[in-house]
Amino acid sequence: MESIVSSSYAVHFNKKAYRALNDHLSASSYSSLFIIVDENTYEECLPDFMNAIEGDLHFEVLEIESGEINKNITTCTHLWETLSSLDADRKSLIINLGGGVVTDLGGFVASTFKRGVDFINVPTTLLAMVDASVGGKTGVDLGPLKNQIGVINQPEMVLVIPSFLKTLEERQLQSGFAEMLKHGLIRNAKYWETLKQLSTFSDIDTKVYDSVVIKNEVVLRDPTEQNIRKILNFGHTLGHAVESYFLKSENHETLLHGEAIAVGMILEGYLSYKITGLPEAELVDIKSTFLSRYKKVSFSNDDIIGILNLLKFDKKNSHGNINFVLLNRIGSPIIDQQIPPNLYVEAFAYYKD
Amino acid sequence: MESIVSSSYAVHFNKKAYRALNDHLSASSYSSLFIIVDENTYEECLPDFMNAIEGDLHFEVLEIESGEINKNITTCTHLWETLSSLDADRKSLIINLGGGVVTDLGGFVASTFKRGVDFINVPTTLLAMVDASVGGKTGVDLGPLKNQIGVINQPEMVLVIPSFLKTLEERQLQSGFAEMLKHGLIRNAKYWETLKQLSTFSDIDTKVYDSVVIKNEVVLRDPTEQNIRKILNFGHTLGHAVESYFLKSENHETLLHGEAIAVGMILEGYLSYKITGLPEAELVDIKSTFLSRYKKVSFSNDDIIGILNLLKFDKKNSHGNINFVLLNRIGSPIIDQQIPPNLYVEAFAYYKD
Repeated sequence: MESIVSSSYAVHFNKKAYRALNDHLSASSYSSLFIIVDENTYEECLPDFMNAIEGDLHFEVLEIESGEINKNITTCTHLWETLSSLDADRKSLIINLGGGVVTDLGGFVASTFKRGVDFINVPTTLLAMVDASVGGKTGVDLGPLKNQIGVINQPEMVLVIPSFLKTLEERQLQSGFAEMLKHGLIRNAKYWETLKQLSTFSDIDTKVYDSVVIKNEVVLRDPTEQNIRKILNFGHTLGHAVESYFLKSENHETLLHGEAIAVGMILEGYLSYKITGLPEAELVDIKSTFLSRYKKVSFSNDDIIGILNLLKFDKKNSHGNINFVLLNRIGSPIIDQQIPPNLYVEAFAYYKD
Repeated sequence: MESIVSSSYAVHFNKKAYRALNDHLSASSYSSLFIIVDENTYEECLPDFMNAIEGDLHFEVLEIESGEINKNITTCTHLWETLSSLDADRKSLIINLGGGVVTDLGGFVASTFKRGVDFINVPTTLLAMVDASVGGKTGVDLGPLKNQIGVINQPEMVLVIPSFLKTLEERQLQSGFAEMLKHGLIRNAKYWETLKQLSTFSDIDTKVYDSVVIKNEVVLRDPTEQNIRKILNFGHTLGHAVESYFLKSENHETLLHGEAIAVGMILEGYLSYKITGLPEAELVDIKSTFLSRYKKVSFSNDDIIGILNLLKFDKKNSHGNINFVLLNRIGSPIIDQQIPPNLYVEAFAYYKD
């Protein structure tokens, strides 16, 4: 596949990815090389990755614990201290080999260590490949609040190696697939139709590529999220609040990111139907598509209140307004929409119905 | 005084500073306003500052504890959490009113909160006015290692209000003056001569301006510190190590930044004499000038070993080399110089002599 060129770097796929990495390593004169992994990618992905590296290079492997719960400043501090103790300097390179937690957090650690060292992202989950691979967003959570602390900073390159997907469980793949379905909803009704009909993930490679192309095109048009880039947040305003609420709740199983935004897209689909005229048939299509793939989540009234209380922390807010991306048709989003408060509860009622 | 235009913002002085701030506040539509202070600037500077603000604006005041020991991630986390709890959003403004700890740390907190909100620096110490006011360096310490974590990010504007200097003790003024003397040593022998003859700080205003002009000119020529900007590190390679060592040592009083780099400039002056041909008379001039203003520091052999061990963490290092800025004349620096190990001990012997 052709590499996809983003603002200051490229996303390389498959064999070209390893070729680009090896060329970069031999052309650069890094003083030391680090790979951040979690216990899963250490076992499942690191051996293949190291096999593909040419020459006699020494890498220090830094392992963090997997899971959103560890995407925090404490983990960063531990990594910063380890980098210091291993004499990392400004000419060091950090490779982030893992899912979104590793790439978001590793990108933040690299962007802030000695005011910034080079990093390369190698997303190993479907979610990270289609979502975190372009856009330069790095960051960690602050308590239950997702990605509250971070910077926008671009990696040297991103390597997408779809064979890593074979190591993932079905539930992880479905989680990433929710972001791909979102790409259809906000940008391309035909892509939405194509993805809906996909019954297996066996040849997802080309679809990953299509999704990265869509996201990259949006990000390049608006790198600092002043306008069009906001459309990528469809389903995320309520979806993030749902995800945060379940993350900190002791009575609920944690939802994967894609599972939470699947809920968010049904809720925000309903708001679209009420506010921006999304046709009812398309709303029904959205709801049935997501509920056929993602287990229906139960919300008590207490849960709904708790979720709505978290809404105000959404990063897209300003001046106390909560700004939504809504659809007027599938494939056609509208940004900066405000919602009358009563509609939130109606949306949850529609979801539960 | 004319405002000094830096890369993407301006440094405004005196009355023009308040004028620029008030214009900015009335032209912008910030959702909420925050001022970070420490207990000293809360008492000594905040009342005057608030008096100068026009209109009926509400500011939340966030107080941190003064002192380099608090320039750490724990203080950042506390501020991030407070900002969250006060519903700060991406359209908020943070004003950092204080010395280098407040402006460096506050700049980092602003640059990373929700991936970056606007901030304005109002340095209240001589050191912060002449050193932290241009360059866009933000950051915090990691244990005893100075400024290991941070980003380069520019404030909206910097306000230099020399009347705040009246609140400072002599020792604090002397600390800032060391950076001004450095500006002479690395860029302008005449300025060095002028400053040497200054016996009082009563009309330091115009000299502050001259120093900001010198630093700004260097930073603008090399914002990312690839070459000429490195000259600003004269005295800092050993000076930072001395400062870090005294910060973590339980047997020594903490040195102020300027006091530590005064030591560093004598030591690196000696290295310049040995390596890059700094004339002996100029070395003697440097040593006697600093020792006439800054109390001589005692170093045991254990101290010297401890300090040299910290050298490797200097951010300017790469590939295990320690890179120094040396002088071949006063006013004429040379970057990227390496030092034979035996000279370090000789330099300390010269300092103690």
